[in-house]
Amino acid sequence: DHFIVCGFGRVGRETCQQLQAENQPFVVIDNEDQRVQRIGEAGYLCVRGDASDDEMLKRAGIMRARALLTAVQTDAVNVYITLSARALNPQLFIVARAATAEAEHKLSIAGANRVISPYILGGRSMAGHALRPAVMDLLDVLVHSDELEIWLEEMAIRADSWLNGMTLGDAQLRQTTGITVLAVRRADGQMIVSPKDDTLLRVGDTVIVLGARSDLEKADRPR
Amino acid sequence: DHFIVCGFGRVGRETCQQLQAENQPFVVIDNEDQRVQRIGEAGYLCVRGDASDDEMLKRAGIMRARALLTAVQTDAVNVYITLSARALNPQLFIVARAATAEAEHKLSIAGANRVISPYILGGRSMAGHALRPAVMDLLDVLVHSDELEIWLEEMAIRADSWLNGMTLGDAQLRQTTGITVLAVRRADGQMIVSPKDDTLLRVGDTVIVLGARSDLEKADRPR
Ligand SMILES: [Ca+2]
Ligand SMILES: [Ca+2]
Repeated sequence: DHFIVCGFGRVGRETCQQLQAENQPFVVIDNEDQRVQRIGEAGYLCVRGDASDDEMLKRAGIMRARALLTAVQTDAVNVYITLSARALNPQLFIVARAATAEAEHKLSIAGANRVISPYILGGRSMAGHALRPAVMDLLDVLVHSDELEIWLEEMAIRADSWLNGMTLGDAQLRQTTGITVLAVRRADGQMIVSPKDDTLLRVGDTVIVLGARSDLEKADRPR
Repeated sequence: DHFIVCGFGRVGRETCQQLQAENQPFVVIDNEDQRVQRIGEAGYLCVRGDASDDEMLKRAGIMRARALLTAVQTDAVNVYITLSARALNPQLFIVARAATAEAEHKLSIAGANRVISPYILGGRSMAGHALRPAVMDLLDVLVHSDELEIWLEEMAIRADSWLNGMTLGDAQLRQTTGITVLAVRRADGQMIVSPKDDTLLRVGDTVIVLGARSDLEKADRPR
């Protein structure tokens, strides 16, 4: 139930910092001297070797991992790692970094569940900050872990969830807990943004909410 | 009232695509043959030359621009462009790209209003998708312009705004327009996330809302 991070470059390092900030267990795979030293200095668990080698993925615990995040610098190697990881563990959640637009599609075919392009994110963020600075400032605050006690979180509706079978109007989350429901994602992936009060919650739905951390914990418990 | 984009590399190109998708006027400054050709092929306005040269910034209309976005590949050049632009136009909104963590602070000192680090965004996004895929999927949808008719938007409260002097409870935005208020940013920068009904809106506040584009237009008009 841990995370595996492949590559401790600039992107990989930031990935690890975020996991660390949320007290998530993870192990880093890298084979370059200086980066391996930095991993040790940061106090992170390290498997020294080539992440495209099945043996190293197994040593990092791929068979029981929650997710693999591959952030090495070359697209070809990220594709190769993704293919290897998918073959070893068909259930694994894989997030892969793409340096080029062309690689995005290849990484999906190789088995990545999500593909992240830092340059595209960077360009979108620059335009976003120029067009809507207050919105982007809010997102920056919400997506970082350590600045506010306010949080964007997701709640899965399970068979035994108190929200299962209720409408949002019945649940009265805003009034009773102070949290705001932003969206409901259905089991088939459909996203209902700013959902209406008559939206019925069912098993397999994911409710995306905004609120103080303590309020979110309240919302996840039956009243 | 246009935007100036310096550098048409991977980040600059994506920045332009976003501005184009929202029908915003902009001009690109670049001095490299192949990139200048690509700017022309995309049908964008181009000033051919070195963006760290005051003359080129003036030719791109820096004195009357709404914002400058500097996305060249070297931090030193982005710092230089930021300094030059700030000296020419003290009112300009400047968004600068940083390649390294060390450059972030320097760009702020040089006069950038916002500093964007693609590698840091990439790492945060990777960890975010592994930890909270539904939340990140929602943000991806909301921050891109073309996928949904749902939108994160900001409304400035001006002296003549119908919302000026009202509480959120009085305004009843959810009930009357279907939009959701996520936060209120005060004039001093304080961000009130998931604000309560008794939050009073005043001149200088910015209300950050989520909703369908047609509903947002309604919300900005007095009833
Ligand atoms: Ca936060
Ligand atoms: Ca959108």
